[in-house]
Amino acid sequence: MLPQWVIEKKRDGHELSEEEIRWFIKGFTSGEIADYQMAAMAMAIYLRGMNPAEVAVLTDAMMRSGDLVDTSSIKAPKVDKHSTGGIGDKVSLPLAPLVACMGIAVPMISGRGLGITGGTLDKMESIPGYRTNLSDKEFVAVIQKCGCSIIGQTGQLAPADKKLYALRDVTGTVPSIALITASIMCKKLAEGIDALVLDVKWGKGAFMRTQKDARALALSMVRVGKKMGKGMAALITDMNQPLGHAAGNALEVIESIETLKGHGPKDLTDITIAFAVEMLVQAGKSKNRKESEKELRALLENGKAFRKFREMVQLQGGDVRVIDDPSLLPRARVIKSYLAPKSGFIVTADAENIGKACLILGSGRTRTDQAVDFAVGASGIRKVGDAVKKGEPLVVMHANDDGKLAEAMKLIEKAFTISAKRGKLPKLIYERIT
Amino acid sequence: MLPQWVIEKKRDGHELSEEEIRWFIKGFTSGEIADYQMAAMAMAIYLRGMNPAEVAVLTDAMMRSGDLVDTSSIKAPKVDKHSTGGIGDKVSLPLAPLVACMGIAVPMISGRGLGITGGTLDKMESIPGYRTNLSDKEFVAVIQKCGCSIIGQTGQLAPADKKLYALRDVTGTVPSIALITASIMCKKLAEGIDALVLDVKWGKGAFMRTQKDARALALSMVRVGKKMGKGMAALITDMNQPLGHAAGNALEVIESIETLKGHGPKDLTDITIAFAVEMLVQAGKSKNRKESEKELRALLENGKAFRKFREMVQLQGGDVRVIDDPSLLPRARVIKSYLAPKSGFIVTADAENIGKACLILGSGRTRTDQAVDFAVGASGIRKVGDAVKKGEPLVVMHANDDGKLAEAMKLIEKAFTISAKRGKLPKLIYERIT
Repeated sequence: MLPQWVIEKKRDGHELSEEEIRWFIKGFTSGEIADYQMAAMAMAIYLRGMNPAEVAVLTDAMMRSGDLVDTSSIKAPKVDKHSTGGIGDKVSLPLAPLVACMGIAVPMISGRGLGITGGTLDKMESIPGYRTNLSDKEFVAVIQKCGCSIIGQTGQLAPADKKLYALRDVTGTVPSIALITASIMCKKLAEGIDALVLDVKWGKGAFMRTQKDARALALSMVRVGKKMGKGMAALITDMNQPLGHAAGNALEVIESIETLKGHGPKDLTDITIAFAVEMLVQAGKSKNRKESEKELRALLENGKAFRKFREMVQLQGGDVRVIDDPSLLPRARVIKSYLAPKSGFIVTADAENIGKACLILGSGRTRTDQAVDFAVGASGIRKVGDAVKKGEPLVVMHANDDGKLAEAMKLIEKAFTISAKRGKLPKLIYERIT
Repeated sequence: MLPQWVIEKKRDGHELSEEEIRWFIKGFTSGEIADYQMAAMAMAIYLRGMNPAEVAVLTDAMMRSGDLVDTSSIKAPKVDKHSTGGIGDKVSLPLAPLVACMGIAVPMISGRGLGITGGTLDKMESIPGYRTNLSDKEFVAVIQKCGCSIIGQTGQLAPADKKLYALRDVTGTVPSIALITASIMCKKLAEGIDALVLDVKWGKGAFMRTQKDARALALSMVRVGKKMGKGMAALITDMNQPLGHAAGNALEVIESIETLKGHGPKDLTDITIAFAVEMLVQAGKSKNRKESEKELRALLENGKAFRKFREMVQLQGGDVRVIDDPSLLPRARVIKSYLAPKSGFIVTADAENIGKACLILGSGRTRTDQAVDFAVGASGIRKVGDAVKKGEPLVVMHANDDGKLAEAMKLIEKAFTISAKRGKLPKLIYERIT
């Protein structure tokens, strides 16, 4: 077998065999198959596609290119959530402790932000002392103690994906449903979970720009997960405007704590509850969705979910004083509001422009080797449909650099439009795919 | 501009601009654009294609990646021929001196053989002393003196093609009409010619397996050449059976000399005359095709073409004693005939199996760094339509290794089929494309 024979087969639109896919990924991981051969293969997969069976084998081969987390000692049902990312998407922070209160184990291995999309890991690291680099043993121990743990990808988790992702980024082969599916799923399934719930976002601030594309990706991931014997469900959600009122790492931790205490933004609370219900269903812990929703809301209101979050932070070395008093979190030097230029109803609060503004301030990174500024971002972001008066703040920007702030403000001006009529309100959740 | 943006544009089926193509090829040649990016681009070109304008720019960019031969001091019309290659295809050897006798300058930069296809350069190098590595100055001087010169590619002729070809070979992107066109034409047009005549072969021993594919490639090359202001014509010719009676380097030189003396095989002589007529037409030196054909045949019969060949060999340092007495050319140790297993008419003399048999004996190479054995090959190859008697030789094999000969003989057995009925005779030339 020569690499070019396998490339040619996919180039000509044929289905690759399990043996061929496994051999190719193994060779690519070890370096025997060159980057240029993988690049040609990625383009052939992009243009010719892969059927669900091929994507499942590709996912499994990439998953097995590195270590698998051994969670067999955890007896509780192990369920995780993954989001394709968006602006202000801090759902994982309240969600993991919330469902852990219901007896679900959440072994959550998260990523860092890249581009306008924030990363759960960066948010957690804005809590001083919080360790995201636990060993597998420590990771499992934290889950055994409090039911959930949020950590970062270890070096040997799916190295084939690490290599392939870097290559796709510079060869125009990123937006392939087959390759995105394998990339996301190989890492999630290496966590040793029983079920996975997916948040596939679409809109101006999301990777998928249309509901149709989001649905295709969700279907592909759900199919692959099921083929690999996992419980799967996906919600297609909105990312045309930011989620909640805050974007930026420490600012999102504050909002997450508010949500965990039962007084978070309505959209963030509702979506957190919706995913929690899906996770309970997957874990076989929900007899009735309405009933589960009530129980979950109670856990936010009675402080149990918040205490669970505090416990996890403490177990991972985080300074819980900032959890008890979020004003101790990193704070920006300059605070500036953007005021409504006229009265009316907000019809757009463009997630992309708000995301870009936060990125300019330093809340995210354009290259993987950049550091982020935990303090900067946006808070008090008003939502589509809100009635506002001229001169009222539409968003409050937090910056540590006046030049960057001026640049960010230009994007913020473009982000909001106000109209005399209240336009159509966007849905929070469009579809459920199982 | 980032390489991936240009890749993405082609990936999505859009036409690349002249600027984008030139920038990409320049970056690839210098190494600023990585091999893996070119590999992804090659696959995108393979699957999305390129229109004639794009192929012309690609060809020009690849041509300009290296040196161009300055033939401006040559006043005669400069016309060359290129063949896509086949078994026993030694047409260049009699053709170049033949048309040089008619006042055409032939600056022929040829390649070596790879796989079952022989290379003009290897054939010429079987003449002891013959130098194929002339400098540009020497090359032009030889043409000034005798009207033609056959040399090899210099290091700086189209380096982009050299790099790209090596990459295509291992990434499953060889059989792309756009990329083949650019690869062939960039080298030929760097020779500084006014016109080019193409021999596009199809069949069992050719790169193109069907007449349809050969036509598509011919059309693409003719279009690109014309766009670049060159006179262009292509003949679609047969390569289901070998051309002439001999395959193998020194054996083909012998057959070429016979042809130059007017007593070569009919098919080889006819095809040489056909291409010579096309070259005369391109050079504006033919008023009437029939008349030109007569003149050309006379040049073979009166020894003028042969003397021109001898002169070229001498000017390039070759030992002309072997031209005068071809029995002095390298000769193989073992000569073995394959005898007709029954009487009847030959219906197949499969060029692929005969080519593979010669390759096994050492007449060609499977890797570019291999040396060839000039002496080995096949002679006396009988043609489709010939009536043969049981026990009569169908081909004579020339070998220097008994083990290899035994292996080659197995392929030779598969190459010939004999039937009681004379089957349909293959055409020599199928189409003319201008």
